[in-house]
Amino acid sequence: MSKKNKPNRPKARRPRGFEDKSADIIRAEQKLIASAFSVYDSHGFEPLQTPAFEYADVLGKFLPDEDRPNTGVFALRDDDEQWMSLRYDLTAPLARFVAENFDGLAKPYRRYQAGSVFRNEKPGPGRFREFVQCDADSVGAPGAAADAEMVMLAADVMRAVGLKDGQYQVRVNNRKLLDGILESTGVPNNEEGAIQRMQVLRAIDKLDRLGPDGVSALLGEGREDDSGDYTEGAKLNPDAIKAVLGFTTASSGDRGQIIIDLEKLVGMSERGQAGIQELRDIDNILSAVGISSDRAAFDTSIVRGLGYYTGPVFEVELLTDIKDKKGRPVRIGSIGGGGRYDDLVSRFRGQAVPATGFSFGVSRLLSALERLDALEAVTQPPVFITVFDRALLGEYFKMAEDIRGAGLRAEVYVGTGNITKQMKYADRRGVQLAIIMGEDEMSKGEVTVKDLYLGAEMAKAISSNEEWKSARPAQETIARDQLIAALKERIKI
Amino acid sequence: MSKKNKPNRPKARRPRGFEDKSADIIRAEQKLIASAFSVYDSHGFEPLQTPAFEYADVLGKFLPDEDRPNTGVFALRDDDEQWMSLRYDLTAPLARFVAENFDGLAKPYRRYQAGSVFRNEKPGPGRFREFVQCDADSVGAPGAAADAEMVMLAADVMRAVGLKDGQYQVRVNNRKLLDGILESTGVPNNEEGAIQRMQVLRAIDKLDRLGPDGVSALLGEGREDDSGDYTEGAKLNPDAIKAVLGFTTASSGDRGQIIIDLEKLVGMSERGQAGIQELRDIDNILSAVGISSDRAAFDTSIVRGLGYYTGPVFEVELLTDIKDKKGRPVRIGSIGGGGRYDDLVSRFRGQAVPATGFSFGVSRLLSALERLDALEAVTQPPVFITVFDRALLGEYFKMAEDIRGAGLRAEVYVGTGNITKQMKYADRRGVQLAIIMGEDEMSKGEVTVKDLYLGAEMAKAISSNEEWKSARPAQETIARDQLIAALKERIKI
Repeated sequence: MSKKNKPNRPKARRPRGFEDKSADIIRAEQKLIASAFSVYDSHGFEPLQTPAFEYADVLGKFLPDEDRPNTGVFALRDDDEQWMSLRYDLTAPLARFVAENFDGLAKPYRRYQAGSVFRNEKPGPGRFREFVQCDADSVGAPGAAADAEMVMLAADVMRAVGLKDGQYQVRVNNRKLLDGILESTGVPNNEEGAIQRMQVLRAIDKLDRLGPDGVSALLGEGREDDSGDYTEGAKLNPDAIKAVLGFTTASSGDRGQIIIDLEKLVGMSERGQAGIQELRDIDNILSAVGISSDRAAFDTSIVRGLGYYTGPVFEVELLTDIKDKKGRPVRIGSIGGGGRYDDLVSRFRGQAVPATGFSFGVSRLLSALERLDALEAVTQPPVFITVFDRALLGEYFKMAEDIRGAGLRAEVYVGTGNITKQMKYADRRGVQLAIIMGEDEMSKGEVTVKDLYLGAEMAKAISSNEEWKSARPAQETIARDQLIAALKERIKI
Repeated sequence: MSKKNKPNRPKARRPRGFEDKSADIIRAEQKLIASAFSVYDSHGFEPLQTPAFEYADVLGKFLPDEDRPNTGVFALRDDDEQWMSLRYDLTAPLARFVAENFDGLAKPYRRYQAGSVFRNEKPGPGRFREFVQCDADSVGAPGAAADAEMVMLAADVMRAVGLKDGQYQVRVNNRKLLDGILESTGVPNNEEGAIQRMQVLRAIDKLDRLGPDGVSALLGEGREDDSGDYTEGAKLNPDAIKAVLGFTTASSGDRGQIIIDLEKLVGMSERGQAGIQELRDIDNILSAVGISSDRAAFDTSIVRGLGYYTGPVFEVELLTDIKDKKGRPVRIGSIGGGGRYDDLVSRFRGQAVPATGFSFGVSRLLSALERLDALEAVTQPPVFITVFDRALLGEYFKMAEDIRGAGLRAEVYVGTGNITKQMKYADRRGVQLAIIMGEDEMSKGEVTVKDLYLGAEMAKAISSNEEWKSARPAQETIARDQLIAALKERIKI
């Protein structure tokens, strides 16, 4: 392009909050998604893909209330003036899909899906405006068997992605238990008590950060934080506060024992009793398939922020004995979760369509696996064929094909640099084995194989260990018909 | 949800031009992408993922020239007032990526990528506003070796996705040849001749539809079509028209022979001679790796619509002997293509950054494979475990785990229907084998296995072939410790 264009030259840059993914990350994420998919698939779930765009009113929670709705979602107006939004999760589009195709679907409809979701939020470190979620859901199954299966899937996916038992725990609660406890303390179990129930959930969710006293204040009159901000409380009476706090801290140890403890706390509330029965059903199935409390526990402190959950909820917690610089255990925390949401599809249909699901963020799980050293290298670098003599290009490509035929990756240098530049390129690419063949060697039926890893080691050891160097040279001449065997013998990854 | 909400209930519907993909399509597309990736990977290409959004000025061709640019792309204004667009292909984002990370990349940088691209266009049958492209590109390699590798990749991907040789052909041309011919007939090989060259390309692209006379008119003064619309011509003189038409219809048969023929046509033009040498280099490499003219031919009628190509260009044509109702051969046509585009990255850098690539549309290739009967079924339906007795749910889930452990898919019914409903569900799911176990059978260590495929066959044959029915019953009682073996023996897919 001519120089006169220079002032108008665009700057190559990404919109903030969006990322390019490197080869290693992509390979690791693909492997992780494939592992999860294979678990879902083995349970008879089927894949679904919905589009990136949905109508804004269909997504629901972010209805356009101004001319250009821009809070949380990316939205734009279509030619026909309807607002479209990029999906912010995979659950709302699933609800649309099921409602749209209701009669054509065999129910329970069980699907899995992974894909980019979009959040129009302020980006931060590790917080992107486009990221990949991986979900499995059952729609049309009201019973606890479907919830138990979700917990199984969560626990088995953690194993499938390479975690050892003890490095993760699925923690299950049931919204109905708290509903029951609140009901017996006077919070009505209907629309009227909805706001109060949500306030209680939000208060419990802060147990980790504020401790029992802080939560107690939020359950009662309210609480002023260090900055002087005042949060209105749920206005529970002291007995109710005691009951709620007693509930959230009730669980530890064995699932069977917790059920016995909880039965006492829940009392006579019908909804609470129904919640207990569901936990019993879940425990029954998990125990039958050999999933112990180590892998999937009951934990009454689990809340899940979203308002749409209606029954069993769970989170997957990653456990670690990594310590930070001050000797405190590093908390990786929840990498995903799910639960029952019986009202999402009925938004469209006006009839009950029970549903339950599990979702995790792919990058979040991947970076947790990295911190737990649970990632394996997933690919070998290609064997690199240098272009020593341009006239032999055809021969080099033929050699590469032979190597590929033996199941190895192989790359012919397609740039224009000389042999020094080519070796620099190979080095940056992380190549282990490079092949050099000139006219002379070709006529003798030979090639030179250079081991760049060994060469680098030797460069380090060269002063201290001259003998070792001569014993296993980093560069060897090999008969061409022995090449594949020689490569396989030397390959490190 | 209560009835009073009914008037506000949203309608479950998709924005027009967007599709939900069914399980079979997804599995087939994933397999197809995996096959292509494995070819790219074996050549030492590395995966890259860029975000869905790019700044509009970075994408280039669709600069916002009005308040809300909406021609071809989906665009919206970010919080900082910059226009962002959803990518319309994977090449423009690659150019941005390379320019942004230029010094950090080992070059040639060779990457592959598959992902959704978005076109804000009028949707039609088989024409979607979101669809998946699969690309491989080399950036930083000026020589014909990189182009030859692209042609190899295209031919090998067609094999990898299940096509037989003879069902596809990569057809290669070189823009430089036509540039050379035009130069020798007086069209200057610089900016001055750019518009005229583009008119010539567009005219040649219509050869199929208009025939030599129509194209001849478009190369000359111009042409009025049946509807009375007049298209201005490229204003070539009669000798030039003859030369161009002679060129576009020159190629047939063997690559080596075509090069000899073309040398005469191109004459003394330096650019034309350079184009010939590139074809020679490509032929040399393809011949060395055993890719015959059947798989990759030279074809001077190949144009590629895009203006940014600068050298070798190619298309992948699917061939078929399928005839339509009138006995005419069904033309499937081009399912992808590529070529050299040496100016795209230099848009950002102001220095030459040569590049070449190959791209195909995943759905387009898939539907072509379907028409060629080149698709295999890719998954088995799950073994279906009925819930005959709710009290045995744990046992059913345990049985499913055992079946999964043997590498089969297995599904426990998690809905609430009775056994009749469950069998209907199994039927709609395409299940072959269903398992029934009640309290009695369990105590005897037995299960019943029902073969739904066999049952359906028998239902058809029942009047004509009573004996066959009794010889191989569709329902059998099997000892539980023989279950896995019995399932494997019966499984059809």
